[in-house]
Amino acid sequence: MNDTVSLGLEEVHRLTFEIFSGHGVSEAQSRAVADVVTAAERDGCKSHGLFRVPSYIASVRSGKMRRDAEPLVTDLAPGVLRVDAGEGFAPLALETGRGPLVEKARNQGIALLAVVNSLHFQAVWYEVEALAEQGLAALACVTTASYVAPAGGTRPLYGTNPLAFGWPRPGRPPLVFDQASSASARGEIMLHERDGHPIPEGWAIDEEGRPTTDPSAALRGAQLAFGGYKGAAIALMVELLAGALIGDLFSFEVSERDNNDGGPMSRGEIVIAIDPARTVPDGDRERHLAHAERLFERILDEPGARLPSDRRYAERLRSARGGIEIPAALHVTLEGLRHGGS
Amino acid sequence: MNDTVSLGLEEVHRLTFEIFSGHGVSEAQSRAVADVVTAAERDGCKSHGLFRVPSYIASVRSGKMRRDAEPLVTDLAPGVLRVDAGEGFAPLALETGRGPLVEKARNQGIALLAVVNSLHFQAVWYEVEALAEQGLAALACVTTASYVAPAGGTRPLYGTNPLAFGWPRPGRPPLVFDQASSASARGEIMLHERDGHPIPEGWAIDEEGRPTTDPSAALRGAQLAFGGYKGAAIALMVELLAGALIGDLFSFEVSERDNNDGGPMSRGEIVIAIDPARTVPDGDRERHLAHAERLFERILDEPGARLPSDRRYAERLRSARGGIEIPAALHVTLEGLRHGGS
Repeated sequence: MNDTVSLGLEEVHRLTFEIFSGHGVSEAQSRAVADVVTAAERDGCKSHGLFRVPSYIASVRSGKMRRDAEPLVTDLAPGVLRVDAGEGFAPLALETGRGPLVEKARNQGIALLAVVNSLHFQAVWYEVEALAEQGLAALACVTTASYVAPAGGTRPLYGTNPLAFGWPRPGRPPLVFDQASSASARGEIMLHERDGHPIPEGWAIDEEGRPTTDPSAALRGAQLAFGGYKGAAIALMVELLAGALIGDLFSFEVSERDNNDGGPMSRGEIVIAIDPARTVPDGDRERHLAHAERLFERILDEPGARLPSDRRYAERLRSARGGIEIPAALHVTLEGLRHGGS
Repeated sequence: MNDTVSLGLEEVHRLTFEIFSGHGVSEAQSRAVADVVTAAERDGCKSHGLFRVPSYIASVRSGKMRRDAEPLVTDLAPGVLRVDAGEGFAPLALETGRGPLVEKARNQGIALLAVVNSLHFQAVWYEVEALAEQGLAALACVTTASYVAPAGGTRPLYGTNPLAFGWPRPGRPPLVFDQASSASARGEIMLHERDGHPIPEGWAIDEEGRPTTDPSAALRGAQLAFGGYKGAAIALMVELLAGALIGDLFSFEVSERDNNDGGPMSRGEIVIAIDPARTVPDGDRERHLAHAERLFERILDEPGARLPSDRRYAERLRSARGGIEIPAALHVTLEGLRHGGS
């Protein structure tokens, strides 16, 4: 028996949508979730793809996710917008805030979107890419749960706290990076555990604070920040921006409230959008974006160097033609969820 | 002969002011420079202290610095402010923009200050600390010159590109970090070279792209980003924010225009300020800042963990009583500059 199954992207979307809507999740929430799961699979971003769906469904079943949640948009200041996700999933909340955020950024030059009370799980690049597609520079970050030791410490406190940045490129997909403040994404450790592979050194310490390459010991212990105390400072900044600043929880508070259903927990995300036409006196967006292209050319002049998003976009081209593959066992699980909705 | 000289902070300020004003630099520019050099010495931040003054004077003597430059403030959008430093030093430009930036952040919730055409050299923490002292969260970054290899590359392209973040703390100095996107500040390598000490592994590669611990070879070769490709992504983001976004130069362009007088070069800096009273529906700044204190308590609960700015503030308390020390040779050089103004 073949141990992987090939799926077209339309089938990935349909499968995801039907699993959620079959579990009583509203059509709008289900469609938004299917959009981001499909985008993750399309771009080879497996740790945020179908692999996560069973845990999202656990959140639906446990009642942690409100199946009919409707995001509520509030204007807090000329440059600040808040979306209360109402314990729904993050994708619909972010999508709901996107249009008003773009408008604010164009009017004010810079604007901030605070998403609160959302069950978060989508890759953060998705949102900054969508904003950069509309000509804006964008920065986004989100807390997660208590996984990463602070600088000098050995117990988990910070989340893996991804920080993403997007920059518009005329006539091509935006430049985007999305990186955990931890040495690795937690999803990567979970994939290593699933596949029975050791993790690289420097990713984590065990429950006694000792370095470990055992993914299970790492998941019980603490992850390490990337680049030592500097990565830990980034993780701390993300806690403050996506936590206290917008009136939502810190990662350690998220963990303390976890109902242990295995699904994502309610927390905050912050997105900052800047209009490059409003940060220069000539207002000439095209000219300044063309200037940025000269930097990208210099980077690509170096043998071995590449732009952060290039691998993801190459995968996108490939999957548009050839679809994607998932483990057969995962496919069986997903088909079970599709037909076993409660 | 004693190889260090003790100075009180008032003397550090007077010495710096007299050196610059004695070289024909305007009183306002000289005072602003003396403020930041004194603050750096006060906080034990030697790489931005008196050690740098001779190179700043080189910029004055070469004509690169405009001695009578007056920063020009322009309102670009409701949330965006621009200060053209007019080839003056950065400290006066930043100080000039600070009041209007604070006002914009309080009115709009979030605001951006673009400083362009400034001869930059001050530690970036100085500015975010000043904003956090006024109750705002602040983020700032600046390009430098072509020093750091991009991810996968071996030739210098990015600047050391420091990123600083400040967070207000009721009744105590703000939480602040300021970290180069490179594994080390360039000033640190310069200090190692001056003192004849090898640099740690992982800081740099030589002109052939090989790892090196020789500070001179490192200064001729390329510095490395902190934490591998993730630190390089931060450096790239800083290039875009403090370069193309605000219509100023990239680090490699700064280097290409360098007149080699050894002093700082004209470039851009971006500062983003956010009012924590405008990012929450209750507008209760004190409540949300108190929330942040709970995170700091958790960090300090861990044996060995500390907050990013604690060492600097401890040094500040110490120097307020005991003054500071500088190498005797540097003191001789500075006294020469004080009395040899052109």
